Amino acid sequence: MCRFTLYLGPPIRLDSLLMEPDHSLIRQSTNSLERDEPLNGDGFGVGWYATHFTREPAVFRSITPAWNNRNLHNLCRVVASDCILAHVRAATQFSGVNEANCHPFRFRQHLFMHNGDVGSFRAVRRRMMETVCDEAFSNVYGSTDTEHFFAVLIDELIRGGHEGDAAEIMAGALRKAIIRVVDLVARYGGAEPSYLNCALSDGENAVVSRFTDSKEHPPESLYYFVGDLYPRAEIEETREAGADTPALIVSSERLTPGPEWQKIPDNHMVVLRRNLPPEVRPCLD
Amino acid sequence: MCRFTLYLGPPIRLDSLLMEPDHSLIRQSTNSLERDEPLNGDGFGVGWYATHFTREPAVFRSITPAWNNRNLHNLCRVVASDCILAHVRAATQFSGVNEANCHPFRFRQHLFMHNGDVGSFRAVRRRMMETVCDEAFSNVYGSTDTEHFFAVLIDELIRGGHEGDAAEIMAGALRKAIIRVVDLVARYGGAEPSYLNCALSDGENAVVSRFTDSKEHPPESLYYFVGDLYPRAEIEETREAGADTPALIVSSERLTPGPEWQKIPDNHMVVLRRNLPPEVRPCLD
Amino acid sequence: MCRFTLYLGPPIRLDSLLMEPDHSLIRQSTNSLERDEPLNGDGFGVGWYATHFTREPAVFRSITPAWNNRNLHNLCRVVASDCILAHVRAATQFSGVNEANCHPFRFRQHLFMHNGDVGSFRAVRRRMMETVCDEAFSNVYGSTDTEHFFAVLIDELIRGGHEGDAAEIMAGALRKAIIRVVDLVARYGGAEPSYLNCALSDGENAVVSRFTDSKEHPPESLYYFVGDLYPRAEIEETREAGADTPALIVSSERLTPGPEWQKIPDNHMVVLRRNLPPEVRPCLD
Amino acid sequence: MCRFTLYLGPPIRLDSLLMEPDHSLIRQSTNSLERDEPLNGDGFGVGWYATHFTREPAVFRSITPAWNNRNLHNLCRVVASDCILAHVRAATQFSGVNEANCHPFRFRQHLFMHNGDVGSFRAVRRRMMETVCDEAFSNVYGSTDTEHFFAVLIDELIRGGHEGDAAEIMAGALRKAIIRVVDLVARYGGAEPSYLNCALSDGENAVVSRFTDSKEHPPESLYYFVGDLYPRAEIEETREAGADTPALIVSSERLTPGPEWQKIPDNHMVVLRRNLPPEVRPCLD
Repeated sequence: MCRFTLYLGPPIRLDSLLMEPDHSLIRQSTNSLERDEPLNGDGFGVGWYATHFTREPAVFRSITPAWNNRNLHNLCRVVASDCILAHVRAATQFSGVNEANCHPFRFRQHLFMHNGDVGSFRAVRRRMMETVCDEAFSNVYGSTDTEHFFAVLIDELIRGGHEGDAAEIMAGALRKAIIRVVDLVARYGGAEPSYLNCALSDGENAVVSRFTDSKEHPPESLYYFVGDLYPRAEIEETREAGADTPALIVSSERLTPGPEWQKIPDNHMVVLRRNLPPEVRPCLD
Repeated sequence: MCRFTLYLGPPIRLDSLLMEPDHSLIRQSTNSLERDEPLNGDGFGVGWYATHFTREPAVFRSITPAWNNRNLHNLCRVVASDCILAHVRAATQFSGVNEANCHPFRFRQHLFMHNGDVGSFRAVRRRMMETVCDEAFSNVYGSTDTEHFFAVLIDELIRGGHEGDAAEIMAGALRKAIIRVVDLVARYGGAEPSYLNCALSDGENAVVSRFTDSKEHPPESLYYFVGDLYPRAEIEETREAGADTPALIVSSERLTPGPEWQKIPDNHMVVLRRNLPPEVRPCLD
Repeated sequence: MCRFTLYLGPPIRLDSLLMEPDHSLIRQSTNSLERDEPLNGDGFGVGWYATHFTREPAVFRSITPAWNNRNLHNLCRVVASDCILAHVRAATQFSGVNEANCHPFRFRQHLFMHNGDVGSFRAVRRRMMETVCDEAFSNVYGSTDTEHFFAVLIDELIRGGHEGDAAEIMAGALRKAIIRVVDLVARYGGAEPSYLNCALSDGENAVVSRFTDSKEHPPESLYYFVGDLYPRAEIEETREAGADTPALIVSSERLTPGPEWQKIPDNHMVVLRRNLPPEVRPCLD
Repeated sequence: MCRFTLYLGPPIRLDSLLMEPDHSLIRQSTNSLERDEPLNGDGFGVGWYATHFTREPAVFRSITPAWNNRNLHNLCRVVASDCILAHVRAATQFSGVNEANCHPFRFRQHLFMHNGDVGSFRAVRRRMMETVCDEAFSNVYGSTDTEHFFAVLIDELIRGGHEGDAAEIMAGALRKAIIRVVDLVARYGGAEPSYLNCALSDGENAVVSRFTDSKEHPPESLYYFVGDLYPRAEIEETREAGADTPALIVSSERLTPGPEWQKIPDNHMVVLRRNLPPEVRPCLD
């Protein structure tokens, strides 16, 4: 399993999101609280948008743990962004620890990350690959269930086209990808459930699901936040703020003790649009 | 492109093969002589057999260059083996530099490495994957043409069964894999030729091809050697010798200036069996 | 802090020591039981002797965690040795996570590793360096308190000369190094105590201390073991045994639940000689 | 030896400096033209200032080669700065390839990098360390001659104080550090000459020396550039420009074929101040 955090809001230094909060993602890499196993030390990744330069987001990934990566600490001090996705990994098998398997994954302007797993992945891997278009196929570089799920999602994004509301297109694609993958697992895998906490963004919008088809266990933990991560007064003083809009955050675990954190209900997704209130809806309907 | 060396003979320290010869593979990682571009600095790998412990060979791989990897230098001093495969890589695109893409690759007791490329790989990648059995499919962890070629070869090895002479089974599988892949490229790729200098071993036998279907260029360079890599007297003094049988070596470039090196003819393969003379034959007939 | 294991006995595969026991060092890297913080994920190192090749031991070190390092897992399957030192690291500050700071450290035929810290290290670092001979000075490549302590110990080893019982020379050098360093801390540092669980070996002998000058806390945990790590019958079947002599192990935590484990008393050291019973004595007299 | 590039001017994406020029530093990492050995593949580092966030510069370093590091390529696309220092390394001995030994090095707001070596370094290393203040001593984390030279330079910077023109303080400190080190080598080393192409910056000013005390060989190559690295029209279109001031660049080799490149005379240094013409003067007088 893993832990992740997604941010959409006024520009913020990576530090302010990933290092400074009481229970930041860095903290969760050694001491996550809502998993049985607290450790997420099998690499990490941070993706962020710098849309004044390019629509295509940047990604920094490493197989060393996030908590002791000096390059990450340096970057976090000086890089600011208005849309950030970060992920700390707990690999299910050591053989897969390499950079190609670190989240977030990228396709065009999209970033994707995942906490959970695809049920019976070894059995359904090639079924997943058979169903996707060539462009989605070519985007797979490693061996994780996440990247293969993302290939199905890319296939749906390409089918969805560019017409209409970007957030809706993304939400529709994620919904269809979940249905497709759960269906493939049912047909070709065993009775193993899937856990699909998935985050997809294009830099201006994001959709994040909290989903499982397990009959016995709830989905992995997931929360969203609307507000100011830091006291407004403190923000005013920093150069990195400057917007009145609230921050939107979705995170595997709450970064701060404040009441602004809402649990996403089982099998629901949250749809985020910059400067608009988040919308919570069922994953499959 | 890349450079590689395969050894089958009396036990020898890795050092004696990879570091000490005048034009060892380590030397070839910075200064290869028979490629246009002398540099092979995008990672490396060494596989070796320790059959007294286990039939499954060990592999040590890294994305740092071979010439400055301290762990490799340490291993080479103290590890001896009677069958060694080593490879230094020149990646065609930086995005693929990760451990999952370093040679040699492993399947059961087999090791495989490659110098060259599959023509129009992006176009035929999924065609290659469609044709292989599940076990071969599941053995792919990265994104190189080599590992995908190896999946086809694994498919042929599995079809070939276990009955009969192991070297012949391997030679037959390699021959069929070359035919299959060249055929897929012709059908689904463009007119781009393939370069398939391929080495496959099971620890007691090996087959190594020097092949291209290019009409304009010869295959990549490849040589074989039968004899003593070091003066026999010197060998006697070391503990690592002790056998009377000659060493068999196949290498992209000659490791030493001696006359024992024979060029493998265009589109031929060499078949090695421990303690027997090597046999050279056409790849395709 | 950190965790370590030292082995002296019949040849054994690294696996049998580092991976297979119930509470092996790999297990301790994620779930150590006798430290407040269970995680030791800031790199690791394994040193071992291959005395039929060379007196100088080999070292394999990495800044990725031990639990997910594929190269380590591969090595452990095929490398056997009759003297092994292994260490998993919990760095006190992320800035120091690089290979030069991973234990064990080497000097000539000696390996050294450490669990604990030198009190007020920043203040006494240069005092430690001022007192050592040039050869000891030149052996420092990184910035850990451990490597600086080892420089003092090397200085004592060089002063000790080669005459006499090697284990006694090593024990005497470790004792004097502890005294020197504790004294330097008292003079130039603050009241900060030192924790000096130190292991030194030459491949045939070893000394391991369990020491602190803290008035408030005991030294870090440390145990020794004499016997067969695996049932004798099982050993007989494997090729890696073949000697009747018992294994001697010293480890930060007990690898197995068996009664053969003895706690080393506070501020004592254990002196190991191949094929002889271990000897426990006070560190300082 | 090594190659480096320093930039002081209007904000520019790292790409525009490090990747895009015909003979950019990335190109020089595989094919440097003005060294005997064209390869600089033993790690790299980039330091840059983001003074709107913090005076302390960021540093990104890695032991993998610059040409194939995906994280570097990602960063270069999205990070812009008005003061950049970048370095590709050719290590003199493989044992020193770790992140602590990659340039540039940092002290407070300063960055430092070096191409060349300190003569008889092993012999004078501890002499250099003996002469510096505690703060300079504590800033040494690795084992390169460069970092030890920097310790002497830090010592001079601290002695120099904060009063007066920052560029002059830096130039004076560099001059004194060169004198001190050359003197130590003469006294405690052999007749081995030093090569000291050194770059020091505080984000607003920089000094770069081209120096050797060799009687037989000239200093390593070094050039400076004043002007627009790209056609002004092209700059106007990008968001990263916006200033009328010319770019100041100092580089081991010329990045472009243009006539704006001037060779720095033997044993001279160039002093750069933002928005002012560069000043060339002798290193030692």
